Amino acid sequence: MDITTFIGATVGFLLIALGIMLRGAGGIDFTQFLAFYNFPSMLITFGGAICATLINYPLSQVLGVFKIAKKVLTEPGESTVGIIEQFVSLCQKARKEGFLALEEDVKKMDNDFMRRGLQMVIDGQDADFIRNLMETELTFIQERHKVGQEIFIALGTYSPAFGMIGTIIGLILMLRNLQDQAQIAAGMAVALLTTFYGAMAAYLIFLPIAGKLKRRSEEEILIKEVIIRGVLLLQSGVAPSVMEANLQAYLSPALRKAALAKEKAAREQMAAEKPPEEGTASQQTSEGK
Amino acid sequence: MDITTFIGATVGFLLIALGIMLRGAGGIDFTQFLAFYNFPSMLITFGGAICATLINYPLSQVLGVFKIAKKVLTEPGESTVGIIEQFVSLCQKARKEGFLALEEDVKKMDNDFMRRGLQMVIDGQDADFIRNLMETELTFIQERHKVGQEIFIALGTYSPAFGMIGTIIGLILMLRNLQDQAQIAAGMAVALLTTFYGAMAAYLIFLPIAGKLKRRSEEEILIKEVIIRGVLLLQSGVAPSVMEANLQAYLSPALRKAALAKEKAAREQMAAEKPPEEGTASQQTSEGK
Amino acid sequence: MDITTFIGATVGFLLIALGIMLRGAGGIDFTQFLAFYNFPSMLITFGGAICATLINYPLSQVLGVFKIAKKVLTEPGESTVGIIEQFVSLCQKARKEGFLALEEDVKKMDNDFMRRGLQMVIDGQDADFIRNLMETELTFIQERHKVGQEIFIALGTYSPAFGMIGTIIGLILMLRNLQDQAQIAAGMAVALLTTFYGAMAAYLIFLPIAGKLKRRSEEEILIKEVIIRGVLLLQSGVAPSVMEANLQAYLSPALRKAALAKEKAAREQMAAEKPPEEGTASQQTSEGK
Amino acid sequence: MDITTFIGATVGFLLIALGIMLRGAGGIDFTQFLAFYNFPSMLITFGGAICATLINYPLSQVLGVFKIAKKVLTEPGESTVGIIEQFVSLCQKARKEGFLALEEDVKKMDNDFMRRGLQMVIDGQDADFIRNLMETELTFIQERHKVGQEIFIALGTYSPAFGMIGTIIGLILMLRNLQDQAQIAAGMAVALLTTFYGAMAAYLIFLPIAGKLKRRSEEEILIKEVIIRGVLLLQSGVAPSVMEANLQAYLSPALRKAALAKEKAAREQMAAEKPPEEGTASQQTSEGK
Amino acid sequence: MDITTFIGATVGFLLIALGIMLRGAGGIDFTQFLAFYNFPSMLITFGGAICATLINYPLSQVLGVFKIAKKVLTEPGESTVGIIEQFVSLCQKARKEGFLALEEDVKKMDNDFMRRGLQMVIDGQDADFIRNLMETELTFIQERHKVGQEIFIALGTYSPAFGMIGTIIGLILMLRNLQDQAQIAAGMAVALLTTFYGAMAAYLIFLPIAGKLKRRSEEEILIKEVIIRGVLLLQSGVAPSVMEANLQAYLSPALRKAALAKEKAAREQMAAEKPPEEGTASQQTSEGK
Repeated sequence: MDITTFIGATVGFLLIALGIMLRGAGGIDFTQFLAFYNFPSMLITFGGAICATLINYPLSQVLGVFKIAKKVLTEPGESTVGIIEQFVSLCQKARKEGFLALEEDVKKMDNDFMRRGLQMVIDGQDADFIRNLMETELTFIQERHKVGQEIFIALGTYSPAFGMIGTIIGLILMLRNLQDQAQIAAGMAVALLTTFYGAMAAYLIFLPIAGKLKRRSEEEILIKEVIIRGVLLLQSGVAPSVMEANLQAYLSPALRKAALAKEKAAREQMAAEKPPEEGTASQQTSEGK
Repeated sequence: MDITTFIGATVGFLLIALGIMLRGAGGIDFTQFLAFYNFPSMLITFGGAICATLINYPLSQVLGVFKIAKKVLTEPGESTVGIIEQFVSLCQKARKEGFLALEEDVKKMDNDFMRRGLQMVIDGQDADFIRNLMETELTFIQERHKVGQEIFIALGTYSPAFGMIGTIIGLILMLRNLQDQAQIAAGMAVALLTTFYGAMAAYLIFLPIAGKLKRRSEEEILIKEVIIRGVLLLQSGVAPSVMEANLQAYLSPALRKAALAKEKAAREQMAAEKPPEEGTASQQTSEGK
Repeated sequence: MDITTFIGATVGFLLIALGIMLRGAGGIDFTQFLAFYNFPSMLITFGGAICATLINYPLSQVLGVFKIAKKVLTEPGESTVGIIEQFVSLCQKARKEGFLALEEDVKKMDNDFMRRGLQMVIDGQDADFIRNLMETELTFIQERHKVGQEIFIALGTYSPAFGMIGTIIGLILMLRNLQDQAQIAAGMAVALLTTFYGAMAAYLIFLPIAGKLKRRSEEEILIKEVIIRGVLLLQSGVAPSVMEANLQAYLSPALRKAALAKEKAAREQMAAEKPPEEGTASQQTSEGK
Repeated sequence: MDITTFIGATVGFLLIALGIMLRGAGGIDFTQFLAFYNFPSMLITFGGAICATLINYPLSQVLGVFKIAKKVLTEPGESTVGIIEQFVSLCQKARKEGFLALEEDVKKMDNDFMRRGLQMVIDGQDADFIRNLMETELTFIQERHKVGQEIFIALGTYSPAFGMIGTIIGLILMLRNLQDQAQIAAGMAVALLTTFYGAMAAYLIFLPIAGKLKRRSEEEILIKEVIIRGVLLLQSGVAPSVMEANLQAYLSPALRKAALAKEKAAREQMAAEKPPEEGTASQQTSEGK
Repeated sequence: MDITTFIGATVGFLLIALGIMLRGAGGIDFTQFLAFYNFPSMLITFGGAICATLINYPLSQVLGVFKIAKKVLTEPGESTVGIIEQFVSLCQKARKEGFLALEEDVKKMDNDFMRRGLQMVIDGQDADFIRNLMETELTFIQERHKVGQEIFIALGTYSPAFGMIGTIIGLILMLRNLQDQAQIAAGMAVALLTTFYGAMAAYLIFLPIAGKLKRRSEEEILIKEVIIRGVLLLQSGVAPSVMEANLQAYLSPALRKAALAKEKAAREQMAAEKPPEEGTASQQTSEGK
């Protein structure tokens, strides 16, 4: 689990626990927590929410989503800047030595999606075939990620619903069995617990994780879009500078400035080593900026 | 009914029942359930919800949806992998013996949609005609599935609404007839029952089933998209390896890896039997992976 | 009003009335209903909802919508199968005798949209002109239907809102004037009545009728799409069998099977009478199925 | 302000006031209204809602929206039928005397959008340039109208929200200062007033006006679409009958029938005066209907 | 922070504070505020909402959003009219002296996006390359702005949610510890505070700021769209008058009228200085208006 998710959830629980303890009589009061544990309430809230989710989604997808969630939450997220650098250097090599010379580099790559795309270029597939295959695959990756988010959203929707159902159950039971005032209050307190469980689970766990999965998925899709564009530009045989200018449009301004500074230094070195390219390469970035 | 749906609903009911019993005085208390049965409350909640749904949708569609639901919930879901294998072997046969040779195989197929698509190829229809007919049909299948989901969503929306209406009815009657304290409590308990019925029906039955129908529909549509692509590729006369690479983009990575392993073994056998194809077939998958 | 809408609303009211009566003291108790009539509450709920709708929509559209609603709810819904049969027979006649021979048949048609489309074919308009006019008209029919649904949805949104406003008014008045306990209870009961009126009107009348209008509109649009396709195919001079295959893709599987059986019988007869067409007509349906 | 909006709001307020008065002790009771005025409650509800809207939208847009609202609510709405008639007569004149002859008529037109479009035709701009300019302008008109609707929707969302906040404030103050029973009831009544203000403002004023703005905007956009089509058809030099048939597809059936009857009479007159046009003009509407 | 946002928030707080004070016993009562401060309630509401947002979004984006928010809220917003004037004068200069003559002007520009676009024109890049790069960048700017809005919407969603959770916690604790009446009321008052905090933060701060960010983003995107269009028109070498007519379609009518008046004066001057352009330039705006 990535550190922000973990810290966010832990600190959230601690702050709310602190808020509960400070409400006690004298200073911090640990006995307050006794009011917040009730096993039958947990059965109703979480049992109901999980079973509704199991009806809603095939079992394989419910189990699979925890794998996706874990993978997406831990994955450090590849650097777009790194991918762009790889493409620029592949582009330079391909221009000098041809696509077949890339085979060794490609085999060593970690990114499975990029490796397969580049292998198709080396194999001499045409652009339409490559674009078609890679975009179909991207669509399906998005689809699978969306199912993962949907399952967490379902958990975050069913939890408060069964919390509310549990509270109604508690009220019905309390109203039926009421004898003295104290029992009413205790009954009410227990009845409200399911609403508390459901809301905490939804707003501190399920819905924020669904949101994080969405963000992570968008980042992964963006990197894969850069890869598809890079593979197609590589195959079309553009100059490394054009490759770079095209892919850098995907960067945020801050990242682009850093990349430009680095690249400028590198380019000056290169300019000393090899003669300038013909026409297309006179990029805006190389003009006394 | 498929097993997860059934188990999910049953376990959900049992867990909530257990939660109710554990709330009783001593250990597990079966008399608690007496508080949860009230016939007039059921009339109001389910009678209202079903009648509102009957106004909302034509009777034929309301009746038809249970058929669709049953079919979609039981259908084992055809394997995409199996469909792809069928297309690859049809493709090999068609290359050697022509489309007319496929007629025997096609007639034995279970999948009605695939059989009719292939029959059009054998009949020599042109690609636009085939694509047009199959895509129009797909659109209408989607439309019918959507109506099915909408009806369950309507039931899941009207149930809590009439549950709420029932509770208001109960409160009005209680407030009008109140004499002693005990009667107020009993009246409140009965009034809350309709909200309980409505929420349980919506969140444990109708909305999760609507969700499951959506999932199943997406799976069926995916398979039909693979079939349309396969039929059109077959008609265009591509090599079996191109057919396979194209259709495998629709698989999840796990399924693709399994399929690749299997295919590699098969291909090595084939390579021993027949000479390699010309150019297009040098797929990335056949390179020492 | 079509029978399901009427029955649904009536049975819904009866079931809820039965639920109310069964809540009474001994068996069925008609005096319970006295609690549910209050004229000022009706003024607030329905007066408010109708006035808000009149601000929201121009008067002419609010009045017009009841006409649309009535027309759409009563119209028996033309049969798509019948439309397809008409097109196939027109197609056969046009092939033998030319478009001008259709003039007599066209003048006798009930469907105004189809008649005007076919008249344009007879008048020799070109395909783009016909498609353009018919599709613009279809867009505007959809637009008008959408306004009808929106007005019922507005009524179904404003009713519970003014029901809630009425309840708050009732509570404020009750709290200001409270003297003895009994009066509080009676005041509460009256205050809740507006919420009851608003919810019943919304969930048993307005929202289900909005839903039914949507369904009916979709059916009408589908038939008009079949007509546009049929008119354009007719004008392009396709064979009757191609016309039939194209239009049948719009049918549900059940309807298609019935139509196929019928058509097969007819085709066998026809085959005995006239020589087979050239190439395009060797449909999949005519092959030993 | 147009009359329906004004009448709707006035009648709505009167009906609800009547409902309040009829709830009093004997017949109609004007002293009931004293319960519904409280200055601090108004400060909280409307002050909060207006300030939140001022944070949400730039000041210039909030001020501008009342101008748009006023203009859109008063504008009588141009008649689509009139616009079509103008185009047909311009078309006839242009055919006989050329585009330059239109200059005098165009200068006298009220509709600024139509005048500028026609002026571009007279100036000899090409079709792409005209379409581009007019469609860009249409997009921006839509955009500005949408901002107007959004501001009213914001007011209609923030009003009940601050009404609810006011009620919570009232409850907190009441609970802190409670001494005797009567004070509790009075405190509750005052606390509920903000909810009442917020809900009335939202459901009787802001949201219905937002809805009316949307309707009016759609009507204005439709007329502008007819104008764009008319200008482009005029420039392409079509026959007046083709112009008419094309633009009438934008009319509702009722309006179209009226227009057809009128036009038929006019056409018969014209037919007596000038020889029939060549081919394209033999419209369906001119055939013995 | 821009002045409207600041004033709106301040006045909103003051009005609500005034409403609270006026509710006191005699005139304005400052001691009322004591009821609205409670540290544990703040911990639960804001601690919970911020932690949930930190789980939902990567830390870098949560921190970055305050920078975006600050930048977007303070930026005076460039004038579209000014941008259009710059493009017209660049266009005139380019026509007379060629693109290279623009280099000095371009280097002095403040707008980074415009400067880079124009530099590409000077560098002789082709139109597709320029459009592609600028539109990709625009898409990503929109994406980053959207993340900023989403984070404020998340804060505005989680705040009332944790306010509600805090109130349930307060109720559970109160019900468990109740001894005398006064304590119940105090407990209730404290329990409601979290709902008050959550609602105030959401409706007076987070959601309106999210709305303002959306507006500002739309303005910035509009200006960037004008710039892209201007850069592409400049590169295609159109006449200054065509440039002006095209870009003015993006102005609101009020701004356009002001611009037209100004431009007309300028044009009359220009007409005296240089001979009229050939054909395309005889704009509608230059005809005796």
